Amino acid sequence: MKKIIKNGTIVTATDTYFGDILIDDGIIVMIGVDLEAEGAEIVDAAGCYIFPGGIDPHTHLDMPFGGTVTKDDFESGTIAAAFGGTTTVIDFCLTSKGAPLAKAVETWHAKSRGKSVIDYSFHLMIAEVSDDVLFELPQIIEEEGITSLKVFMAYKNVFQADDGTLFKTLLLAKEQGALVMVHAENGDVIDFLIAKALEEGKIEPIYHALTRPPVLEGEATGRAADLTELADSQLYVVHVTCAEAVWKITEARKKGLRVYGETCPQYLMLDQSYLEKPNFEGAKYVWSPPLREKWNQDVLWDALRNGQLQTIGSDQCSFDFKGQKDLGLGDFSKIPNGGPMIEDRFSVLYSEGVRKGRISLHKFVDIVSTASAKLFGLFPQKGTIAIGSDADIVIFDPTAERTISAETHHMNVDYNAFEGLEITGEPVSVLVRGEFVIRNKQFVGKPGTGQYLHRKRFNQMEKLPIKEKTIGGYTNVGL
Amino acid sequence: MKKIIKNGTIVTATDTYFGDILIDDGIIVMIGVDLEAEGAEIVDAAGCYIFPGGIDPHTHLDMPFGGTVTKDDFESGTIAAAFGGTTTVIDFCLTSKGAPLAKAVETWHAKSRGKSVIDYSFHLMIAEVSDDVLFELPQIIEEEGITSLKVFMAYKNVFQADDGTLFKTLLLAKEQGALVMVHAENGDVIDFLIAKALEEGKIEPIYHALTRPPVLEGEATGRAADLTELADSQLYVVHVTCAEAVWKITEARKKGLRVYGETCPQYLMLDQSYLEKPNFEGAKYVWSPPLREKWNQDVLWDALRNGQLQTIGSDQCSFDFKGQKDLGLGDFSKIPNGGPMIEDRFSVLYSEGVRKGRISLHKFVDIVSTASAKLFGLFPQKGTIAIGSDADIVIFDPTAERTISAETHHMNVDYNAFEGLEITGEPVSVLVRGEFVIRNKQFVGKPGTGQYLHRKRFNQMEKLPIKEKTIGGYTNVGL
Amino acid sequence: MKKIIKNGTIVTATDTYFGDILIDDGIIVMIGVDLEAEGAEIVDAAGCYIFPGGIDPHTHLDMPFGGTVTKDDFESGTIAAAFGGTTTVIDFCLTSKGAPLAKAVETWHAKSRGKSVIDYSFHLMIAEVSDDVLFELPQIIEEEGITSLKVFMAYKNVFQADDGTLFKTLLLAKEQGALVMVHAENGDVIDFLIAKALEEGKIEPIYHALTRPPVLEGEATGRAADLTELADSQLYVVHVTCAEAVWKITEARKKGLRVYGETCPQYLMLDQSYLEKPNFEGAKYVWSPPLREKWNQDVLWDALRNGQLQTIGSDQCSFDFKGQKDLGLGDFSKIPNGGPMIEDRFSVLYSEGVRKGRISLHKFVDIVSTASAKLFGLFPQKGTIAIGSDADIVIFDPTAERTISAETHHMNVDYNAFEGLEITGEPVSVLVRGEFVIRNKQFVGKPGTGQYLHRKRFNQMEKLPIKEKTIGGYTNVGL
Amino acid sequence: MKKIIKNGTIVTATDTYFGDILIDDGIIVMIGVDLEAEGAEIVDAAGCYIFPGGIDPHTHLDMPFGGTVTKDDFESGTIAAAFGGTTTVIDFCLTSKGAPLAKAVETWHAKSRGKSVIDYSFHLMIAEVSDDVLFELPQIIEEEGITSLKVFMAYKNVFQADDGTLFKTLLLAKEQGALVMVHAENGDVIDFLIAKALEEGKIEPIYHALTRPPVLEGEATGRAADLTELADSQLYVVHVTCAEAVWKITEARKKGLRVYGETCPQYLMLDQSYLEKPNFEGAKYVWSPPLREKWNQDVLWDALRNGQLQTIGSDQCSFDFKGQKDLGLGDFSKIPNGGPMIEDRFSVLYSEGVRKGRISLHKFVDIVSTASAKLFGLFPQKGTIAIGSDADIVIFDPTAERTISAETHHMNVDYNAFEGLEITGEPVSVLVRGEFVIRNKQFVGKPGTGQYLHRKRFNQMEKLPIKEKTIGGYTNVGL
Repeated sequence: MKKIIKNGTIVTATDTYFGDILIDDGIIVMIGVDLEAEGAEIVDAAGCYIFPGGIDPHTHLDMPFGGTVTKDDFESGTIAAAFGGTTTVIDFCLTSKGAPLAKAVETWHAKSRGKSVIDYSFHLMIAEVSDDVLFELPQIIEEEGITSLKVFMAYKNVFQADDGTLFKTLLLAKEQGALVMVHAENGDVIDFLIAKALEEGKIEPIYHALTRPPVLEGEATGRAADLTELADSQLYVVHVTCAEAVWKITEARKKGLRVYGETCPQYLMLDQSYLEKPNFEGAKYVWSPPLREKWNQDVLWDALRNGQLQTIGSDQCSFDFKGQKDLGLGDFSKIPNGGPMIEDRFSVLYSEGVRKGRISLHKFVDIVSTASAKLFGLFPQKGTIAIGSDADIVIFDPTAERTISAETHHMNVDYNAFEGLEITGEPVSVLVRGEFVIRNKQFVGKPGTGQYLHRKRFNQMEKLPIKEKTIGGYTNVGL
Repeated sequence: MKKIIKNGTIVTATDTYFGDILIDDGIIVMIGVDLEAEGAEIVDAAGCYIFPGGIDPHTHLDMPFGGTVTKDDFESGTIAAAFGGTTTVIDFCLTSKGAPLAKAVETWHAKSRGKSVIDYSFHLMIAEVSDDVLFELPQIIEEEGITSLKVFMAYKNVFQADDGTLFKTLLLAKEQGALVMVHAENGDVIDFLIAKALEEGKIEPIYHALTRPPVLEGEATGRAADLTELADSQLYVVHVTCAEAVWKITEARKKGLRVYGETCPQYLMLDQSYLEKPNFEGAKYVWSPPLREKWNQDVLWDALRNGQLQTIGSDQCSFDFKGQKDLGLGDFSKIPNGGPMIEDRFSVLYSEGVRKGRISLHKFVDIVSTASAKLFGLFPQKGTIAIGSDADIVIFDPTAERTISAETHHMNVDYNAFEGLEITGEPVSVLVRGEFVIRNKQFVGKPGTGQYLHRKRFNQMEKLPIKEKTIGGYTNVGL
Repeated sequence: MKKIIKNGTIVTATDTYFGDILIDDGIIVMIGVDLEAEGAEIVDAAGCYIFPGGIDPHTHLDMPFGGTVTKDDFESGTIAAAFGGTTTVIDFCLTSKGAPLAKAVETWHAKSRGKSVIDYSFHLMIAEVSDDVLFELPQIIEEEGITSLKVFMAYKNVFQADDGTLFKTLLLAKEQGALVMVHAENGDVIDFLIAKALEEGKIEPIYHALTRPPVLEGEATGRAADLTELADSQLYVVHVTCAEAVWKITEARKKGLRVYGETCPQYLMLDQSYLEKPNFEGAKYVWSPPLREKWNQDVLWDALRNGQLQTIGSDQCSFDFKGQKDLGLGDFSKIPNGGPMIEDRFSVLYSEGVRKGRISLHKFVDIVSTASAKLFGLFPQKGTIAIGSDADIVIFDPTAERTISAETHHMNVDYNAFEGLEITGEPVSVLVRGEFVIRNKQFVGKPGTGQYLHRKRFNQMEKLPIKEKTIGGYTNVGL
Repeated sequence: MKKIIKNGTIVTATDTYFGDILIDDGIIVMIGVDLEAEGAEIVDAAGCYIFPGGIDPHTHLDMPFGGTVTKDDFESGTIAAAFGGTTTVIDFCLTSKGAPLAKAVETWHAKSRGKSVIDYSFHLMIAEVSDDVLFELPQIIEEEGITSLKVFMAYKNVFQADDGTLFKTLLLAKEQGALVMVHAENGDVIDFLIAKALEEGKIEPIYHALTRPPVLEGEATGRAADLTELADSQLYVVHVTCAEAVWKITEARKKGLRVYGETCPQYLMLDQSYLEKPNFEGAKYVWSPPLREKWNQDVLWDALRNGQLQTIGSDQCSFDFKGQKDLGLGDFSKIPNGGPMIEDRFSVLYSEGVRKGRISLHKFVDIVSTASAKLFGLFPQKGTIAIGSDADIVIFDPTAERTISAETHHMNVDYNAFEGLEITGEPVSVLVRGEFVIRNKQFVGKPGTGQYLHRKRFNQMEKLPIKEKTIGGYTNVGL
């Protein structure tokens, strides 16, 4: 029942120190030098970093899209996540106008139940804010602990909500203590640009990027920030890709707004030229927003380091190249949007971020784990290595070298967007609530052991676990 | 020799949890639930927060200025600091053109030796970058561990250096791994404005503020950031007071620059109208840069919360109202510049920041302690509660209520700038390297027990304390 | 047939000089000192400025709105305009989805034919860009000379177009040489805010302003500018009211975009507090965007002086206080939007702008006349005093003093928004194409003498009137 | 005595029209169609533009610099200017600390007297603002009509003034109605960078550019604007070269400040790579600030078009390649700074600006003539074609094609920086106060006929030339 992880270097968003960790009943109960405990299993982590398990705030598992379904479901997807050092995912629960939210949530429970090998939670898509939604949503938030609401400003006639809906969601989120997430692209104009491109016979994957120019991401980001200012609410911009959007977030934060941004490893590492790969291979890199010109990568790294962006999501949304992506042969707009990133998010960030000196070790832990825990109401249960927290732990060998490849990855998809990338650093073992899911690079978990996480409200005032005296509480966002 | 602090709520820049801390030989060696250790002294912290000791990155103790000397020296000043929850100060070592740097440092050692009750270190003022300085400075950095260099852009004909000196210091700092600090005000123009005001018979304290308008702080801040960009170096702007300066820092950070900013409790709490107090009382609030119009306070709080500013210094520089401040009766420019803030920095930030919901508990710890430790090469020895760190600990009662007053403060000065301010939260006991300096609100320390701290270089790559295998190291700034 | 205006001080957007003007057949044919011409009528303008006739680029005459119709039609409206020094208006021709554009234009011709006492033209509202519109619009532009297209981003479910329509209009405008005009407010959010206010029983006129906050004007302005950048087209933002919008225009112009802005006298002179006048008098000041906090006025004046805004429109849209505005008694959203400004635009700008030293005489002429002529394809026929131009002339006594009042104004409406404002400077006589419309402050014109103006395309390359040799042409926008 | 220029197309900063101009006694007295006047000489301008003579606000004729003297004096320089369409120059009168200003002005009178073939005036350099200067300057302004004061922020130990001097000059300029001009580069840092480069053996011309990076121009520009804001004065930034500086000016103008900027043809046409020309030819392109990376050219054109920059100066400062520039063989810092631009300024702007569609004809006239006349107190005597103005006229053939070359230019210098540039448009004849200086591309003027111009104060309220009645006056800056 007890475990001691010995000899590792423990790293959190603030600290780095040498020490042992005692886990009891899935919880971290002691940290110190030369720990001992009767009957405890000893796990040697010599030469390794001990990180809190990664939290991926942005996945689409088992999601229907464009007439097909993502290849990775909650089983293959979370196994791959675990291999990659991620112990919690927050997946997007889709809804449709007119249908009860509870039904959508139940659909997502059905998809994940019995399958996930790591812990998980759901964001809820908001397609409209009707009277029904206004009535039902507070219940969902309370009962399901779903405290983040996603609004799409793009995908016209599919997911897209209008500005009134976004604004009403922001107001409701403020009242209920939820965080509004936006996919920020101007869907109206993109819709036209796509139609125009197709009309002109522009059908190749590169037109996916060219019909979604960065100015339209910047525009929508600024618009969402402006509405957030008016609503005095809170906003999280998913998958920020370009300078235009980063600068709008910076501008909002300069005004003191509670506006946060996420980027993804693909935007830090790949660029628009990938969509021009021959033999339709560009389709492997089709997702939205699209890859950008290379110079934006520096802007994104700087924004992570200097705190304009807070988190890294994978935007995992995997489709096979053969059989799915090729739905778009002859029409780029029919290429299923998305890529397989859930497995490599953590290691790529370490290798390209920390090893290359772009971000500190602490910033790394913050963006791949801690900040998401705090923003999405999972902290301190998740996102750190501290007394009382879940023992979600990654034992990470910072010197291991490997080459990313679809041949060796664990996602259920026939290509890897980082194919051939040589990286340094790799999870050796991964524990969720004290139990090994990955042990010495082998999967030892069991589908269904992952638990659904009921999340706290945004900035919730919390009763602190202090005996004898009551302390007034604190804001749970330390960003 | 051993101590266990029990039942407290431990708070770091990242974490908040309930647990006990075992201290052995001044070092934190274990953290956990229900710790026991033979022979250990038990300290009950029930109902209290356990914070890492505050780090005050900006003090002027025993400093000659304007023909007088600050009232608080390293004894009274550090005792007051300890009462206030601060366990480390970094004081400014003044130098003069032509004189050996080593001599200046020795003077400061002489001032502090045998007096300080908490740990301390020095920043080094750079008045010029002559061949002598170029020769001597690397030695000082190496031998004294002084890795932060202060350049004054104000105080013409006294401390002020020209832009060439600032730029050379930035280059040298980059090469040597030091952090350049600037007092950012345009001294040339201020010098003229003061002379002009006096010529026009404007002699009251308020003219201290009116002859140092915010645009001149913004200008100098932007100038320093521009030179930092050109030098590809690192910059820390001390005592930021106004929107004009914050925005320049934000602009620099938006470009990805390593530019950091400090503000002080006085700029968050007081405003320019204080200089208009009758009976020359305005003189109590004379320091540079001056207090600003009240609306700037919101900008400063926002900048702390959203990460544009990183630290809180006290800019402690105390002069008695009677006998010192009154040197400026009849000529505001002769009022010794400075105020007594070392004692209240920590508690005021807690009460006004955390209690009033402006910043989170974690952000509080970060700005009053952790960020300074990281920026100034003291981390992880100082600035956190973690295995292996010095047991510099504040046991803080968050519900205690008190009124700040010169009658009860411990600084050796006859007024308090926050006189009458009602605050919530107070340090109960304070330990430095495991020894009580304050115990149950009584001073129990001994002058001379504070140790001089040899600091690491900025962003130094560090050998991690890992057995068996060598890890490549990491950047020590987690900001 | 000939006239000589003698002894005046002629002022254009560039020049000020003393001279006489010889008019022949409605055209300016000679300017000089002591001109003579046989049989010419001599008009003495001693002591007066001679300005080019004002061009009002923004009027709504005889327009149905909110179940009623504006009080001033093309007769009363243009008579009032002439009294005020305006010799050309460009009125907005409304269209509706699905209906032929030609029919809408014919409706507007019917409204104006036989009525106008000054020259006039039409902007065309674009409600959608359907295939029909794409087919018909180039014809309208060519045949009617309507080279400016108005898109509403506000008035949801009434005039509002979506972003796709705006973008398509921008593309079409680029191709056809037209200028796109936007009413920039976020209609979706406003629509919600109005419904919410009414639901909460907030029915007074002030809620008109409070449900249309400036951030929503800034947002829409930035959005329109972003789409203009993407389309590489040209944009004119009508009735800019606030800093938020001015700054977005400045930002766009900084990028080199062809983005222009208009403000109106009401935004320069009145403020939000007017909507709080008792006895429902606030309704007199209800138009969209609403009046703003007073500090915005300085921003607008600065923007005119420094060239961030280019023109002054009246946004004339008059409704009686009794019988029309009172439709909104009990529901501010039913107050007909608009005010009577056509008559006072010119004089108020002179008195408050030039006399008070905010703008130069040249800038005055530019913003009330020349810039509109250039932007809207009327130059050099209109907008200046130069050889070959129409003799649209205002003889203006800069020393006349008067008080604006509904009792003395010539608009067909029962109140004046500037009631009681004391101004200096007044048109004495006004000529359109060489014929007096106002003579010694008396109306001497005749309904129907105003001519419809077929306008040139935006930035049209023009055949210059040079004999013998062909010159390559020039861009007609000198802004 | 009288002349009629017939059949040309007259262009001003506002107007373009076909007409004749009657000149009497050097003054424009009539403009119209088919003018006749007994005894008048007829000048046929068919197929040509008639522009107001160019005003070059930035020349250094007969100026000592770096141990040598510029090759062009007031004779050769103004002859070349005239060939190029410039009829007025404002030259910089150097001063030195401690010496009477009057003496410096007299030196400049001596240099120009009897030599200039076009009209001219002086700006006055301010090296310090001592009591003597404070006493003498108002007299100089009044008696000499020198209403623009130049402060150097660069050239340490030579011309450079400190910020106190700049600020005092701004205050004095406000009081006296003068315009402060700055050379905006951070001289302190440049001084160090040059020394460092030389120390490292970097001696080639390209290091001139690399030791004066754009950030230092941006910094100084922002600093000057900030001091202008504080002084509530007016500022003109000479020779703006880069985005960093343009953006600071835009920022200042956005705040409503009276801050203006000039660029030069060399910055619009040439770039930093020219300094790398082999065989020391890079030295031909050595001037300060240096040429920049090519992308800045678009920023400068945009800034001219959208009104962030107002004028074009030549910064004429000619040195022979053989015998002068080669003083810097072996040490780039000894290359005399400056280039020969006085002749080609006007035509290059027409050809590259108007012909290539970057700016309108009106904007062209404004930036090469009118705006300088207004900013520097020469309007309306100079800078326009209007009744009462001096007949300074350029008859310009817009279709002439030629190639710029030192072989055919008229400057007294052995190279041309635009050598080989093919341009369209050329002055055919040039008149100063009604007399031909250039006639059919031949010089027909006479040294000494140019007159010294006593200039009006900045924004001077002017008595308008109106009979019978007094008009209150107007601000003379129509920018």
